[in-house]
Amino acid sequence: MQIRNNRYTLKNCRFIVNYDKIFENTNIVIQDEYIKNLGREVEGDEFDCSEYVAIPGLVNAHTHTPMIALRGYYDDAELTEWLEKMWEFEKVFKTNEMNIASELAVMEMLSKGTTAFIDMYFNPEGVKEIAEKYGIRAYAGYTFLNRLFDPHEIDKKQRQLKASELFKPIVNVHSIYSTSVDTLKLANQLAEETNSWIHIHVSETRSEIYEIKKKYGKFPVELLNELRIVRKAQLVHLGWVANWELQYVTNATHCPTSNMKLATAGFFPFKELIESGVNVTIGTDGAASNNSLDMFREMKNAVLLQRYSYWDVGIKAYHVFKAATENGYKLINLKGGKIEEGYIADIVLLKKDKLYPLKKDRILSNIVYYSVGEHVGKVIVNGRIVYDENVEREFDKRRRELLGLLDKIIP
Amino acid sequence: MQIRNNRYTLKNCRFIVNYDKIFENTNIVIQDEYIKNLGREVEGDEFDCSEYVAIPGLVNAHTHTPMIALRGYYDDAELTEWLEKMWEFEKVFKTNEMNIASELAVMEMLSKGTTAFIDMYFNPEGVKEIAEKYGIRAYAGYTFLNRLFDPHEIDKKQRQLKASELFKPIVNVHSIYSTSVDTLKLANQLAEETNSWIHIHVSETRSEIYEIKKKYGKFPVELLNELRIVRKAQLVHLGWVANWELQYVTNATHCPTSNMKLATAGFFPFKELIESGVNVTIGTDGAASNNSLDMFREMKNAVLLQRYSYWDVGIKAYHVFKAATENGYKLINLKGGKIEEGYIADIVLLKKDKLYPLKKDRILSNIVYYSVGEHVGKVIVNGRIVYDENVEREFDKRRRELLGLLDKIIP
Repeated sequence: MQIRNNRYTLKNCRFIVNYDKIFENTNIVIQDEYIKNLGREVEGDEFDCSEYVAIPGLVNAHTHTPMIALRGYYDDAELTEWLEKMWEFEKVFKTNEMNIASELAVMEMLSKGTTAFIDMYFNPEGVKEIAEKYGIRAYAGYTFLNRLFDPHEIDKKQRQLKASELFKPIVNVHSIYSTSVDTLKLANQLAEETNSWIHIHVSETRSEIYEIKKKYGKFPVELLNELRIVRKAQLVHLGWVANWELQYVTNATHCPTSNMKLATAGFFPFKELIESGVNVTIGTDGAASNNSLDMFREMKNAVLLQRYSYWDVGIKAYHVFKAATENGYKLINLKGGKIEEGYIADIVLLKKDKLYPLKKDRILSNIVYYSVGEHVGKVIVNGRIVYDENVEREFDKRRRELLGLLDKIIP
Repeated sequence: MQIRNNRYTLKNCRFIVNYDKIFENTNIVIQDEYIKNLGREVEGDEFDCSEYVAIPGLVNAHTHTPMIALRGYYDDAELTEWLEKMWEFEKVFKTNEMNIASELAVMEMLSKGTTAFIDMYFNPEGVKEIAEKYGIRAYAGYTFLNRLFDPHEIDKKQRQLKASELFKPIVNVHSIYSTSVDTLKLANQLAEETNSWIHIHVSETRSEIYEIKKKYGKFPVELLNELRIVRKAQLVHLGWVANWELQYVTNATHCPTSNMKLATAGFFPFKELIESGVNVTIGTDGAASNNSLDMFREMKNAVLLQRYSYWDVGIKAYHVFKAATENGYKLINLKGGKIEEGYIADIVLLKKDKLYPLKKDRILSNIVYYSVGEHVGKVIVNGRIVYDENVEREFDKRRRELLGLLDKIIP
């Protein structure tokens, strides 16, 4: 279902919207995996883009794709109780069943403009296969979680997991509180030796801070710093982080909807993090705690939560748009997240009729505050057209098949 | 574009979802404006409903329809500065121009499952005509706002405004701070004599509390109580209300997205209000402060904000679904907001394929936490089918015409 075309032109895009620069009625020439040119040139096949607004692909920096199986299952509990309920199901959740749910999540994310995602779960081989099949970028790995798995087993399996065109292995650690210092050290060594990064939930709840401080005499980020983990880690949540801990952080991911829904309180210090030079990204978290995988809704909620927490409007549309595009690509170490010459051709085309009033000085606002994933018309990843209305019909058929299978599994 | 059919059956609806009761594979018989029967009976024409989930129509309890003209215009300011900017444009915004924007908003709301809305602006005659044309329920009136209008002029015009099948006049008062005690008394008398209610922004910001207390020696709700206004009023926002003021309140409307976006802080005491027996409803506010008019997104954000503010999960999906359905109809004094025998036939059909995993014990969660307006397939108001895919094509044409006109007006 992916169309590979070595060279083509998206002709006359109504707008091209980067977080810092907007072009009007402009062509995008794509050559292999890259954006060759922006302007008036036409090369190769032509696709009329006049009914679309082009934006860089969105990176969902934190999710748990198989949890789409648990969407709507247990929505009215705080994090600790909720997690117990999730783990109860996860003990009997088989790999082939996880793959069914991951495939559903991939179709959903792609159709809503997500071009890359970072996944924490237990079926990375399946995710790899699905990513290559659908043409989405995926970053996944086995997950250190001592309650469910032997860490040495995880280490061993992770070393056998290989990269492919669109898939890259990462080292997933569920959290400090669900592992041990030995496991953290093991994961750190693994990340170094496999040239990967550590993706970990940190400082999500007040009780986590209390428990870690009681057990180790340190705050969570402080402890990760002492273990020399934090610099190459992607810290997810950071709702209860001390200002002095921020100096240690390189990558932080915000999941505003999930944090609010699970009543974790605290707040993610978006402004302080970007002022400290931290690469801030945004994730939907899993479908069991959000329950949407729509990055447009997530960008908006990130602004709303900051404004509510800080009593000011310091965080604006372009901050979250940058976080979901350029910063996302920086995290996965690709020259993407902008529609400019020489950048990776990961592009989302939004139906322009959905973005009214359509004006140059309002377009970014309307993308962040008004749009939803349903406004997406086409998606291009690595130069290939991987989603459009024809693909949607294929998705629809496949979705019915998969849901038939899923219905037999889910609680 | 409205289909009037005296008697028909929505056959075999996959689910029928009320906040307190869910039916499976059930028929809905509609006779004139009412739901005649739920069950296995078939009367009149048959419409296959097996691909749909039926929910009661959603009431958008607070909006400013013409502000769709300002969507995306000035999104990064706090309320006071933002309001100055809005008023600047509103001074030159002509009634016929407002009507263009209101018509766009009505199409948008209807297509996203809103069957009734409460509007505060300056073009109620236009709103009345539009509501009858599109078949949506509208509650609107001229607005007391001393800075822009002579209150006696408003009083006079309001007395000439008459109800029609779907339209009812209400007394709009912008706020305490933008009127005077004399104007509030005038509005109160008008509401009594026209058998209407007062729809007013109250206790939205901390500075409002400070200003009102300084000027009148009273808190806003306290002042409205002293003026004998509060019992028959619909109080919108209530972000900065004292617990002891709640005893005076009858109707309260929450606009979580707008409050967060404008950084008004405080919080709407959802739980305390319902425990005090107050009729709590939900509104999107205008498109310039949200910027969406999607009540599905608003229901979700209402839960998220409460959970974030209270550090607990006390407010659940069914609370906000009740607020948007049954409580909304209670406010407008109609026996609606539930799909049951004898209730008004205001019904929204959601495409069931969008609500996966589709299970009886997850369906309400997935409607509130996952759905967006784009999942709406058909809308029925007062027994008439007023929105479906054929109507959407008409909307599309009309939208293009109106946007062409709007482009010449907007800043």
